[in-house]
Amino acid sequence: MAGYNVPSLERLIEQFERLPGIGHKSAERLAYYMLSLPETETQKFADTVVEAKKKIHFCKVCCNFTDKDICPVCADKERDRSIIIVVKEPKDVIAIERTKEFNVTYHVLHGLISPMNGISPANLHIKELLARLNNDEVKEVIMATGPTVEGDATGMYLNKLIRPLGIKVTRLGLGLPVGADLQYADEVTIARSIKNRCSYDGG
Amino acid sequence: MAGYNVPSLERLIEQFERLPGIGHKSAERLAYYMLSLPETETQKFADTVVEAKKKIHFCKVCCNFTDKDICPVCADKERDRSIIIVVKEPKDVIAIERTKEFNVTYHVLHGLISPMNGISPANLHIKELLARLNNDEVKEVIMATGPTVEGDATGMYLNKLIRPLGIKVTRLGLGLPVGADLQYADEVTIARSIKNRCSYDGG
Repeated sequence: MAGYNVPSLERLIEQFERLPGIGHKSAERLAYYMLSLPETETQKFADTVVEAKKKIHFCKVCCNFTDKDICPVCADKERDRSIIIVVKEPKDVIAIERTKEFNVTYHVLHGLISPMNGISPANLHIKELLARLNNDEVKEVIMATGPTVEGDATGMYLNKLIRPLGIKVTRLGLGLPVGADLQYADEVTIARSIKNRCSYDGG
Repeated sequence: MAGYNVPSLERLIEQFERLPGIGHKSAERLAYYMLSLPETETQKFADTVVEAKKKIHFCKVCCNFTDKDICPVCADKERDRSIIIVVKEPKDVIAIERTKEFNVTYHVLHGLISPMNGISPANLHIKELLARLNNDEVKEVIMATGPTVEGDATGMYLNKLIRPLGIKVTRLGLGLPVGADLQYADEVTIARSIKNRCSYDGG
């Protein structure tokens, strides 16, 4: 007996092992947990997975996840459609919405350009973004793709595409996070925060 | 918009969040991954979960997982039925089988006594173990429940129950792991290894 000798258990562990960030030990733990649940609960788990996959798709406008044709943000008539914030993934939209300060629209790329991982612009929802710029409504596109190598590369790539259309392209400001202790900030962030210094009236 | 505003997505994240060792961020990541798979793949994942739960149950003899009435180890006529090794969970059986040195039988408790976590002897598969001792076949029960507080407590509890039946009860030896560096071993292990010292002929 090399392993469990129970094909359906081995298949279950295998399925969990395919999930991102789940190694063999964790997959075993999850499989055991599943077996410890009552049958109604495992059925519910399975049904939820199938139902979510069936119902959820991309918003036709911003490519965020939705179970409708157009997501609530894009359908909201009160939103300022002159500004689009471009983000990597749906979670980023939630993070920005949480600030409750910006009544704008979004565009979700579902990834960042990353040649190392074989992700090229064609793999992202870029053509849907460009389609939204084909009218005079949009005045500014804010790149919120993050200050990482891939986030910067994606932002710069989009900047090159969008700027010629006469639309302003900006990126999120860099500096110290609010509440940060100078001692623990890295040199690059400190340098950026000095270059990006501003007066106390926010100017 | 406080969250995703997509009920089926929120339910999916919730289901993953219920799994052990999966926090909210990981649950989101897993849910996204599921949505990124083709529908046939998510269906397969769901089917595997349901099928495993339906097919897998406890071996009638040793309580290990099996899809048959009696697991391959218990069904194996070549096994020495005079020795039962008692373990916490199915993984432990695999670990011992991997040594390929012991042609014995096992008993899986599916947990350890842990009053802190509300796990009492009644929650473990102890009565199935006692039922196996109701004949003259079994000569020795080896506690491989692990040298932890809970493992020791469970072993001692079973020792008290089984010894009066005239059956030898032993526990795994304590000492330095093979290949261990003395510098990195803890004091308790070093002390046990000195007390448990043996001659070079293994005596």
